[in-house]
Amino acid sequence: MKKIVDFSKFLLSNSKIITAPKGFCASAVKAGIKRGTLFDLGLLLSKNETFVTAVFTKNKMMAAPVLFCKQLLTEKTMFRGIIVNSGNANAGTGKTGFDDCIEIVKNLEHKLNLPEHSILIASTGVIGQYLPKNKFFQSYPLLISQLSEDDNNFPEAIKTTDRYTKAYGLKIQLDNNRTFSIGAVAKGAGMICPNMATMLAFITTDVGGDKQFFKASLSWVVNQTFNRITVDGDMSTNDSVFLFANGESQVFLNTQYEKNLFKMALLYLCKKLAIDIVSDGEGAKKCVKIIVKGAKNNREAKIGAFKISNSMLVKTMIGGEDPNWGRIIAAIGASQINAKEENINILFNEFQLVKNGMYTSQTIEEKIADLMKMKNYEITIDLNLGKGSYFVYTCDIGHTYIDINGGYRS
Amino acid sequence: MKKIVDFSKFLLSNSKIITAPKGFCASAVKAGIKRGTLFDLGLLLSKNETFVTAVFTKNKMMAAPVLFCKQLLTEKTMFRGIIVNSGNANAGTGKTGFDDCIEIVKNLEHKLNLPEHSILIASTGVIGQYLPKNKFFQSYPLLISQLSEDDNNFPEAIKTTDRYTKAYGLKIQLDNNRTFSIGAVAKGAGMICPNMATMLAFITTDVGGDKQFFKASLSWVVNQTFNRITVDGDMSTNDSVFLFANGESQVFLNTQYEKNLFKMALLYLCKKLAIDIVSDGEGAKKCVKIIVKGAKNNREAKIGAFKISNSMLVKTMIGGEDPNWGRIIAAIGASQINAKEENINILFNEFQLVKNGMYTSQTIEEKIADLMKMKNYEITIDLNLGKGSYFVYTCDIGHTYIDINGGYRS
Repeated sequence: MKKIVDFSKFLLSNSKIITAPKGFCASAVKAGIKRGTLFDLGLLLSKNETFVTAVFTKNKMMAAPVLFCKQLLTEKTMFRGIIVNSGNANAGTGKTGFDDCIEIVKNLEHKLNLPEHSILIASTGVIGQYLPKNKFFQSYPLLISQLSEDDNNFPEAIKTTDRYTKAYGLKIQLDNNRTFSIGAVAKGAGMICPNMATMLAFITTDVGGDKQFFKASLSWVVNQTFNRITVDGDMSTNDSVFLFANGESQVFLNTQYEKNLFKMALLYLCKKLAIDIVSDGEGAKKCVKIIVKGAKNNREAKIGAFKISNSMLVKTMIGGEDPNWGRIIAAIGASQINAKEENINILFNEFQLVKNGMYTSQTIEEKIADLMKMKNYEITIDLNLGKGSYFVYTCDIGHTYIDINGGYRS
Repeated sequence: MKKIVDFSKFLLSNSKIITAPKGFCASAVKAGIKRGTLFDLGLLLSKNETFVTAVFTKNKMMAAPVLFCKQLLTEKTMFRGIIVNSGNANAGTGKTGFDDCIEIVKNLEHKLNLPEHSILIASTGVIGQYLPKNKFFQSYPLLISQLSEDDNNFPEAIKTTDRYTKAYGLKIQLDNNRTFSIGAVAKGAGMICPNMATMLAFITTDVGGDKQFFKASLSWVVNQTFNRITVDGDMSTNDSVFLFANGESQVFLNTQYEKNLFKMALLYLCKKLAIDIVSDGEGAKKCVKIIVKGAKNNREAKIGAFKISNSMLVKTMIGGEDPNWGRIIAAIGASQINAKEENINILFNEFQLVKNGMYTSQTIEEKIADLMKMKNYEITIDLNLGKGSYFVYTCDIGHTYIDINGGYRS
């Protein structure tokens, strides 16, 4: 299946992405939560009730909106939409922060004439400050009046240090009369040190399906994509991925084939967003796939792949476009996974720089130095010990990262 | 004991440090191993046999000189000295690298008219390249002819990206007729991502003592100092700390008091070197002590302290001089240790910014912003859960780090 369908043919080419699936509308305003005059408050609504499933951060200090949604999602699965702000993460704000979520949501539900517990909430931005509730309340009339079947500036409103918006959609025809859409938008950058960069994603679809299937599919896809760019159990306080499936297309996923098709389409979109997030790493110029194979098992391959991907010396090596492979060997050694130096092969795309732990040749090194000038390539580390494998996307580190994070609040 | 003796009164004030203890001599030359004309090959010798004990890296990919010394130190404990080069780590070089160690040492022993297995070896620099053996051999005559009871340029010869040499010595009087010295020199910087920066330290003393006592003391001191700036089990391929005790002062550590005095003196010197290494972090301007207390146990306190210390966002916060404490909370959450947001207190020196998980006041934040302009201060994170505590020294990250590591080999 993975190789049969070329989803790129079905990519939506206009700016109507999360509102491409039937029955969704969106809106965004400049509420003054972020500094400067920027979009910072977005609303995503389904005209009728929609099934919602979500995957949240594994960080132990979950932000108030995460705690709020997690709790609500254990109680019910049908909602009408979500309010999202950037500029303030409402994290590290304790009970006050949680109560603020309740108040912000209740006030909006009231303005929308919706029953209680219809709306979810997500936030991203600075940690440790209370949400400016009044700025929300004051913005609601405009936010609601601008709702339309268009993304409007929703993808803009969820950005923090992102340099560009990230949104992809697919329109898929199952047979002559059955068509559905999926739209996905994300924010996230700062992947230099992925353990702290907040990632938010909102995915809409008008296809109908089994709730457990949607839940399991989202969980599997997140593990194959967003979790490959974020250290496991090491996410930010706010990371959240929401899937809204409202069934408005009147198309239902019946067969195993149709279900697989949906799952692969979801994978395709989330992979594109994940790579966009890495490539938008604060100041990053490269997105490199780190593949560890031949490890004792998958668990060890994962530990090794993340250790290499997060090594500052590997990241500066990628930025410096110099195949200083000793840094990769050192990172493997530091990871404490099973590895024997004399077994290790290291390849940059098809060029093998290290064979059985030994440097191959100057000629190949020069080819690799050229290769490293590209924006995207793969580094494969074969430990030649077992069958474990794992891959992670990483980026380089550059001066822009320091500028952005040294002065993030000032 | 710790508080009774003010060792600063006994600090040696001249440049004769590792040769301050009787019977040691040193030398250094510009062998051409490092780029440019810089000292890169050093020799430390004791005129008679000296007891040696050492602590090595926990990185699984140990460099050839580490493997060489580890093996030799299981076979014997008495040596005459050590040869040290910078510019090339002889790591990731497999059997060839190990054989190179044998040949380099043998050749030197021959030139010095010493029996086999008299000399140890240490290396630091680029990983993945073979040592230029001939440059060693060609340099031996000059290196040997310049040996004198002076440090010469030995501390210079072991530097890589270090901005300054790090050497401290003590002269201690036990009673009227009994005096001994300790000299300690180290190299190490690049502590931004401490898991890959090589740290070497060479400590000499002319005091005599029980071999097991010296061994245990060095191990304890390294754990209190150098291991507080380097992630446990996460060191570089070459990290090594050597203690040479030749007994030439004819003074022997007899009583428990004398042994403690020596141990505390060793702690004093290694702490000074460790803080120097952090402060010399590539481009670093600050050295900040991160203290985690009130953790469930010491193990969790250690995990938390290292997570905070290694967080890029905390490091850029320190560099940016802005008390963005949410990044500390997020790092604790990411560490997965036991913690309750509503229990957490965060202090910058005596100023409490967070009390029971809540921000205290703008007035205090402003005082802390002033405090953060200083080069050295403490951040205390009290989890208020148990009695576990641990501290780690960390530094800020700045643009210089990128310059140094992006272009380290070029």
